[in-house]
Amino acid sequence: MPHISLPEGLPGISSGFAFRPETAKPMRELAHVLLHGPNTLSPGERELIATYVSSQNDCYFCQSSHGAAAAAHLAQNPAIVELVKHDFLDAPISDKLKALLAIAGQVQQGGKHVTTQAVDAARKQGATDLEIHDTVLIAAAFCMYNRYVDGLATWQPQDRAMYASMGEHLATYGYLTPSLKS
Amino acid sequence: MPHISLPEGLPGISSGFAFRPETAKPMRELAHVLLHGPNTLSPGERELIATYVSSQNDCYFCQSSHGAAAAAHLAQNPAIVELVKHDFLDAPISDKLKALLAIAGQVQQGGKHVTTQAVDAARKQGATDLEIHDTVLIAAAFCMYNRYVDGLATWQPQDRAMYASMGEHLATYGYLTPSLKS
Repeated sequence: MPHISLPEGLPGISSGFAFRPETAKPMRELAHVLLHGPNTLSPGERELIATYVSSQNDCYFCQSSHGAAAAAHLAQNPAIVELVKHDFLDAPISDKLKALLAIAGQVQQGGKHVTTQAVDAARKQGATDLEIHDTVLIAAAFCMYNRYVDGLATWQPQDRAMYASMGEHLATYGYLTPSLKS
Repeated sequence: MPHISLPEGLPGISSGFAFRPETAKPMRELAHVLLHGPNTLSPGERELIATYVSSQNDCYFCQSSHGAAAAAHLAQNPAIVELVKHDFLDAPISDKLKALLAIAGQVQQGGKHVTTQAVDAARKQGATDLEIHDTVLIAAAFCMYNRYVDGLATWQPQDRAMYASMGEHLATYGYLTPSLKS
Protein backbone atom coordinates (compact mmCIF):
# COMPACT_ATOMS: atom_id res chain seq x y z
CA MET A 1 0.00 0.00 0.00
CA PRO A 2 1.38 3.43 -0.90
CA HIS A 3 2.67 5.57 1.98
CA ILE A 4 0.31 8.43 0.98
CA SER A 5 -3.10 8.58 -0.73
CA LEU A 6 -2.08 8.32 -4.38
CA PRO A 7 -4.69 8.11 -7.18
CA GLU A 8 -5.73 4.47 -7.60
CA GLY A 9 -5.25 2.42 -10.76
CA LEU A 10 -2.10 4.23 -11.88
CA PRO A 11 1.07 2.13 -11.59
CA GLY A 12 4.47 3.32 -10.40
CA ILE A 13 5.54 6.85 -11.17
CA SER A 14 2.22 7.62 -12.96
CA SER A 15 0.50 7.85 -9.57
CA GLY A 16 3.06 10.33 -8.22
CA PHE A 17 2.79 12.37 -11.41
CA ALA A 18 -1.01 12.51 -11.10
CA PHE A 19 -0.75 13.43 -7.39
CA ARG A 20 1.61 16.36 -8.03
CA PRO A 21 1.38 17.72 -11.61
CA GLU A 22 3.68 20.66 -10.76
CA THR A 23 6.66 18.37 -10.20
CA ALA A 24 5.55 15.87 -12.87
CA LYS A 25 6.05 18.46 -15.62
CA PRO A 26 9.82 19.01 -15.22
CA MET A 27 10.36 15.33 -14.36
CA ARG A 28 8.66 14.30 -17.61
CA GLU A 29 10.62 16.88 -19.58
CA LEU A 30 13.95 15.75 -18.17
CA ALA A 31 13.23 12.11 -19.07
CA HIS A 32 12.11 13.18 -22.54
CA VAL A 33 15.30 15.13 -23.29
CA LEU A 34 17.56 12.43 -21.85
CA LEU A 35 15.88 9.34 -23.33
CA HIS A 36 13.91 10.51 -26.37
CA GLY A 37 15.53 13.75 -27.56
CA PRO A 38 18.13 14.08 -30.35
CA ASN A 39 21.34 12.31 -29.35
CA THR A 40 24.29 10.44 -30.85
CA LEU A 41 23.42 7.63 -28.41
CA SER A 42 20.39 5.78 -29.77
CA PRO A 43 17.17 5.78 -27.72
CA GLY A 44 17.68 2.02 -27.23
CA GLU A 45 21.15 2.58 -25.76
CA ARG A 46 19.86 5.28 -23.43
CA GLU A 47 16.94 3.11 -22.30
CA LEU A 48 19.43 0.31 -21.55
CA ILE A 49 21.40 2.68 -19.30
CA ALA A 50 18.16 3.69 -17.51
CA THR A 51 17.13 0.04 -17.18
CA TYR A 52 20.52 -1.04 -15.83
CA VAL A 53 20.58 1.68 -13.17
CA SER A 54 16.97 0.93 -12.17
CA SER A 55 17.92 -2.73 -11.88
CA GLN A 56 20.91 -1.87 -9.67
CA ASN A 57 18.53 0.21 -7.52
CA ASP A 58 16.12 -2.75 -7.41
CA CYS A 59 13.20 -0.67 -8.72
CA TYR A 60 10.73 -3.11 -10.28
CA PHE A 61 8.51 -0.56 -12.00
CA CYS A 62 11.35 1.43 -13.61
CA GLN A 63 13.40 -1.55 -14.76
CA SER A 64 10.25 -3.15 -16.23
CA SER A 65 8.91 -0.04 -18.00
CA HIS A 66 12.27 1.18 -19.32
CA GLY A 67 13.32 -2.40 -20.09
CA ALA A 68 10.16 -2.67 -22.21
CA ALA A 69 10.97 0.66 -23.89
CA ALA A 70 14.49 -0.59 -24.62
CA ALA A 71 13.08 -3.86 -26.00
CA ALA A 72 10.71 -1.89 -28.24
CA HIS A 73 13.66 0.08 -29.63
CA LEU A 74 15.80 -3.06 -29.99
CA ALA A 75 13.09 -5.06 -31.75
CA GLN A 76 15.59 -7.37 -33.42
CA ASN A 77 17.00 -8.57 -30.12
CA PRO A 78 14.95 -7.68 -27.04
CA ALA A 79 16.78 -10.39 -25.06
CA ILE A 80 19.66 -7.89 -24.75
CA VAL A 81 17.71 -6.16 -21.98
CA GLU A 82 17.97 -9.09 -19.56
CA LEU A 83 21.61 -9.73 -20.53
CA VAL A 84 22.54 -6.10 -19.80
CA LYS A 85 20.82 -6.22 -16.42
CA HIS A 86 22.58 -9.39 -15.35
CA ASP A 87 26.08 -9.00 -16.87
CA PHE A 88 26.49 -6.18 -19.38
CA LEU A 89 30.13 -7.09 -20.09
CA ASP A 90 28.89 -10.33 -21.63
CA ALA A 91 25.99 -8.77 -23.57
CA PRO A 92 26.03 -8.33 -27.38
CA ILE A 93 26.39 -4.54 -27.21
CA SER A 94 29.16 -2.18 -28.35
CA ASP A 95 32.33 -1.71 -26.32
CA LYS A 96 31.41 1.97 -26.06
CA LEU A 97 28.06 1.17 -24.45
CA LYS A 98 29.79 -1.26 -22.06
CA ALA A 99 32.17 1.52 -21.02
CA LEU A 100 29.25 3.93 -20.52
CA LEU A 101 27.33 1.34 -18.48
CA ALA A 102 30.41 1.02 -16.24
CA ILE A 103 30.26 4.79 -15.60
CA ALA A 104 26.49 4.57 -14.96
CA GLY A 105 27.11 1.82 -12.40
CA GLN A 106 29.62 4.04 -10.61
CA VAL A 107 27.17 6.97 -10.54
CA GLN A 108 24.53 4.65 -9.07
CA GLN A 109 26.87 3.95 -6.15
CA GLY A 110 27.57 7.67 -5.68
CA GLY A 111 28.92 10.64 -7.61
CA LYS A 112 32.40 10.35 -6.09
CA HIS A 113 32.64 6.73 -7.26
CA VAL A 114 33.15 7.79 -10.89
CA THR A 115 36.81 7.24 -11.81
CA THR A 116 39.05 8.97 -14.34
CA GLN A 117 39.94 5.46 -15.55
CA ALA A 118 36.32 4.65 -16.40
CA VAL A 119 35.89 7.98 -18.21
CA ASP A 120 39.16 7.48 -20.12
CA ALA A 121 38.06 3.95 -21.08
CA ALA A 122 34.79 5.32 -22.50
CA ARG A 123 36.64 8.03 -24.40
CA LYS A 124 38.98 5.39 -25.89
CA GLN A 125 35.90 3.63 -27.25
CA GLY A 126 34.84 6.85 -28.97
CA ALA A 127 32.50 8.32 -26.35
CA THR A 128 32.15 12.11 -26.62
CA ASP A 129 31.94 14.55 -23.72
CA LEU A 130 28.21 14.94 -24.36
CA GLU A 131 27.68 11.17 -24.31
CA ILE A 132 29.61 10.90 -21.03
CA HIS A 133 27.63 13.83 -19.61
CA ASP A 134 24.31 12.29 -20.58
CA THR A 135 25.32 8.89 -19.21
CA VAL A 136 26.16 10.48 -15.84
CA LEU A 137 22.89 12.41 -15.84
CA ILE A 138 20.70 9.47 -16.95
CA ALA A 139 22.20 7.40 -14.13
CA ALA A 140 21.80 10.26 -11.62
CA ALA A 141 18.23 10.95 -12.76
CA PHE A 142 17.24 7.31 -12.32
CA CYS A 143 18.61 7.43 -8.79
CA MET A 144 15.86 10.06 -8.35
CA TYR A 145 13.05 8.36 -10.30
CA ASN A 146 13.74 4.99 -8.62
CA ARG A 147 13.71 6.54 -5.13
CA TYR A 148 10.53 8.47 -5.94
CA VAL A 149 8.72 5.33 -7.13
CA ASP A 150 9.82 3.10 -4.24
CA GLY A 151 10.01 5.83 -1.58
CA LEU A 152 6.26 6.41 -1.98
CA ALA A 153 5.65 2.63 -2.08
CA THR A 154 3.69 3.01 -5.32
CA TRP A 155 1.52 0.22 -6.75
CA GLN A 156 3.68 -1.84 -9.14
CA PRO A 157 1.64 -4.61 -10.78
CA GLN A 158 3.51 -7.62 -12.15
CA ASP A 159 1.83 -7.59 -15.55
CA ARG A 160 4.19 -8.13 -18.48
CA ALA A 161 1.60 -7.15 -21.10
CA MET A 162 1.05 -3.80 -19.36
CA TYR A 163 4.78 -3.02 -19.34
CA ALA A 164 5.14 -4.13 -22.98
CA SER A 165 2.32 -1.78 -23.98
CA MET A 166 3.84 1.03 -21.91
CA GLY A 167 7.27 0.38 -23.45
CA GLU A 168 5.84 0.60 -26.99
CA HIS A 169 4.15 3.90 -26.12
CA LEU A 170 7.29 5.37 -24.52
CA ALA A 171 9.50 4.25 -27.41
CA THR A 172 7.11 5.87 -29.90
CA TYR A 173 5.98 9.05 -28.18
CA GLY A 174 8.49 9.68 -25.38
CA TYR A 175 7.78 11.05 -21.93
CA LEU A 176 5.86 14.30 -22.17
CA THR A 177 2.39 12.81 -21.82
CA PRO A 178 0.98 9.88 -19.81
CA SER A 179 1.43 6.44 -21.38
CA LEU A 180 -1.40 4.89 -19.37
CA LYS A 181 -4.89 6.00 -18.46
CA SER A 182 -6.49 5.11 -15.16
CA MET B 1 39.66 18.49 -12.80
CA PRO B 2 36.23 17.79 -14.29
CA HIS B 3 35.80 14.49 -16.17
CA ILE B 4 34.62 16.37 -19.30
CA SER B 5 35.34 19.84 -20.74
CA LEU B 6 32.92 21.96 -18.73
CA PRO B 7 32.83 25.78 -19.08
CA GLU B 8 35.48 27.27 -16.78
CA GLY B 9 34.78 29.61 -13.89
CA LEU B 10 31.35 28.18 -13.08
CA PRO B 11 31.21 26.21 -9.82
CA GLY B 12 29.37 22.96 -9.23
CA ILE B 13 26.10 22.37 -11.01
CA SER B 14 26.31 25.73 -12.83
CA SER B 15 28.96 24.28 -15.15
CA GLY B 16 26.81 21.25 -16.03
CA PHE B 17 23.83 23.56 -16.61
CA ALA B 18 25.89 25.75 -18.97
CA PHE B 19 27.24 22.67 -20.79
CA ARG B 20 23.76 21.22 -21.44
CA PRO B 21 21.00 23.86 -21.37
CA GLU B 22 18.40 21.34 -22.60
CA THR B 23 18.64 19.32 -19.38
CA ALA B 24 19.33 22.38 -17.21
CA LYS B 25 15.85 23.77 -17.94
CA PRO B 26 13.76 20.97 -16.36
CA MET B 27 16.34 20.47 -13.58
CA ARG B 28 16.06 24.16 -12.64
CA GLU B 29 12.27 24.03 -12.82
CA LEU B 30 12.07 20.98 -10.57
CA ALA B 31 14.28 22.63 -7.93
CA HIS B 32 12.22 25.82 -8.17
CA VAL B 33 8.88 24.05 -7.59
CA LEU B 34 10.26 21.89 -4.78
CA LEU B 35 12.28 24.50 -2.89
CA HIS B 36 10.85 27.89 -3.82
CA GLY B 37 7.24 27.30 -4.96
CA PRO B 38 4.12 27.68 -2.78
CA ASN B 39 4.16 25.10 0.01
CA THR B 40 3.00 24.58 3.58
CA LEU B 41 6.62 23.70 4.38
CA SER B 42 8.62 26.93 4.54
CA PRO B 43 11.45 27.46 2.02
CA GLY B 44 13.89 27.28 4.95
CA GLU B 45 12.54 23.88 6.00
CA ARG B 46 12.78 22.57 2.44
CA GLU B 47 16.34 23.90 2.03
CA LEU B 48 17.26 22.12 5.28
CA ILE B 49 15.98 18.83 3.84
CA ALA B 50 18.02 19.43 0.64
CA THR B 51 21.10 20.34 2.69
CA TYR B 52 20.78 17.30 4.94
CA VAL B 53 20.49 14.87 2.02
CA SER B 54 23.42 16.55 0.22
CA SER B 55 25.44 16.23 3.39
CA GLN B 56 24.58 12.52 3.68
CA ASN B 57 25.68 12.16 0.04
CA ASP B 58 28.91 14.02 0.87
CA CYS B 59 28.35 16.61 -1.88
CA TYR B 60 30.33 19.71 -0.88
CA PHE B 61 28.86 22.08 -3.48
CA CYS B 62 25.21 21.19 -2.82
CA GLN B 63 25.40 21.15 0.97
CA SER B 64 27.25 24.50 0.90
CA SER B 65 24.95 26.28 -1.57
CA HIS B 66 21.68 24.93 -0.15
CA GLY B 67 23.01 25.32 3.38
CA ALA B 68 23.62 28.99 2.54
CA ALA B 69 20.11 29.29 1.07
CA ALA B 70 18.68 27.73 4.25
CA ALA B 71 20.75 30.13 6.37
CA ALA B 72 19.44 33.07 4.34
CA HIS B 73 15.87 31.95 5.00
CA LEU B 74 16.58 31.27 8.69
CA ALA B 75 18.29 34.61 9.27
CA GLN B 76 17.53 34.58 12.98
CA ASN B 77 19.43 31.35 13.54
CA PRO B 78 21.65 30.23 10.66
CA ALA B 79 23.55 27.93 13.05
CA ILE B 80 20.63 25.51 12.68
CA VAL B 81 22.08 24.42 9.33
CA GLU B 82 25.19 22.84 10.85
CA LEU B 83 23.18 21.33 13.71
CA VAL B 84 20.77 19.68 11.25
CA LYS B 85 23.64 18.26 9.21
CA HIS B 86 25.36 16.75 12.23
CA ASP B 87 22.43 15.59 14.41
CA PHE B 88 19.00 16.83 13.39
CA LEU B 89 17.31 15.14 16.37
CA ASP B 90 19.16 17.55 18.64
CA ALA B 91 18.58 20.67 16.49
CA PRO B 92 16.12 23.45 17.50
CA ILE B 93 13.58 22.57 14.79
CA SER B 94 9.99 21.31 14.96
CA ASP B 95 9.19 17.68 15.70
CA LYS B 96 7.45 17.57 12.32
CA LEU B 97 10.60 18.61 10.48
CA LYS B 98 12.61 16.05 12.46
CA ALA B 99 10.17 13.34 11.35
CA LEU B 100 10.41 14.51 7.73
CA LEU B 101 14.22 14.56 7.89
CA ALA B 102 14.10 10.95 9.10
CA ILE B 103 12.11 10.05 5.96
CA ALA B 104 14.55 12.02 3.78
CA GLY B 105 17.46 10.08 5.31
CA GLN B 106 15.73 6.80 4.45
CA VAL B 107 15.16 7.93 0.84
CA GLN B 108 18.85 8.84 0.59
CA GLN B 109 19.72 5.24 1.43
CA GLY B 110 17.24 3.91 -1.14
CA GLY B 111 13.52 4.09 -1.94
CA LYS B 112 12.75 0.76 -0.28
CA HIS B 113 14.31 1.97 2.99
CA VAL B 114 11.32 4.22 3.71
CA THR B 115 9.26 2.64 6.49
CA THR B 116 5.57 2.86 7.33
CA GLN B 117 6.67 3.68 10.88
CA ALA B 118 8.61 6.76 9.73
CA VAL B 119 5.66 7.94 7.62
CA ASP B 120 3.22 7.35 10.50
CA ALA B 121 5.52 9.26 12.86
CA ALA B 122 5.56 12.25 10.48
CA ARG B 123 1.77 12.12 10.15
CA LYS B 124 1.42 12.08 13.95
CA GLN B 125 3.39 15.34 14.01
CA GLY B 126 0.89 16.86 11.59
CA ALA B 127 2.63 16.22 8.25
CA THR B 128 0.22 16.12 5.31
CA ASP B 129 0.39 13.73 2.35
CA LEU B 130 1.70 16.56 0.19
CA GLU B 131 4.44 17.38 2.71
CA ILE B 132 5.46 13.71 2.87
CA HIS B 133 5.40 13.51 -0.94
CA ASP B 134 7.56 16.59 -1.31
CA THR B 135 10.01 15.38 1.34
CA VAL B 136 10.43 12.08 -0.54
CA LEU B 137 10.88 13.93 -3.84
CA ILE B 138 13.29 16.58 -2.47
CA ALA B 139 15.44 13.76 -1.05
CA ALA B 140 15.21 11.75 -4.28
CA ALA B 141 15.99 14.82 -6.42
CA PHE B 142 19.08 15.62 -4.38
CA CYS B 143 20.27 12.06 -4.92
CA MET B 144 20.25 13.15 -8.58
CA TYR B 145 21.71 16.66 -8.22
CA ASN B 146 24.47 15.41 -5.89
CA ARG B 147 25.45 12.59 -8.25
CA TYR B 148 25.41 14.98 -11.21
CA VAL B 149 27.70 17.48 -9.46
CA ASP B 150 30.18 14.89 -8.16
CA GLY B 151 29.82 12.40 -11.01
CA LEU B 152 31.18 15.03 -13.43
CA ALA B 153 33.87 16.02 -10.88
CA THR B 154 32.82 19.67 -11.16
CA TRP B 155 34.94 22.53 -9.80
CA GLN B 156 33.80 23.21 -6.21
CA PRO B 157 35.71 26.16 -4.72
CA GLN B 158 35.91 26.38 -0.92
CA ASP B 159 34.85 30.01 -0.72
CA ARG B 160 32.34 30.77 2.02
CA ALA B 161 31.58 34.27 0.74
CA MET B 162 30.69 32.88 -2.68
CA TYR B 163 28.26 30.34 -1.19
CA ALA B 164 26.75 33.01 1.09
CA SER B 165 26.12 35.24 -1.91
CA MET B 166 24.69 32.32 -3.89
CA GLY B 167 22.47 31.37 -0.94
CA GLU B 168 21.07 34.93 -0.69
CA HIS B 169 20.33 34.89 -4.42
CA LEU B 170 18.65 31.47 -4.31
CA ALA B 171 16.59 32.38 -1.24
CA THR B 172 15.39 35.57 -2.95
CA TYR B 173 14.89 34.56 -6.57
CA GLY B 174 14.77 30.76 -6.59
CA TYR B 175 16.18 28.43 -9.20
CA LEU B 176 14.95 29.40 -12.65
CA THR B 177 17.91 31.60 -13.59
CA PRO B 178 21.65 31.36 -12.86
CA SER B 179 22.75 32.72 -9.49
CA LEU B 180 26.34 33.27 -10.62
CA LYS B 181 27.91 34.70 -13.72
CA SER B 182 31.17 33.38 -15.09
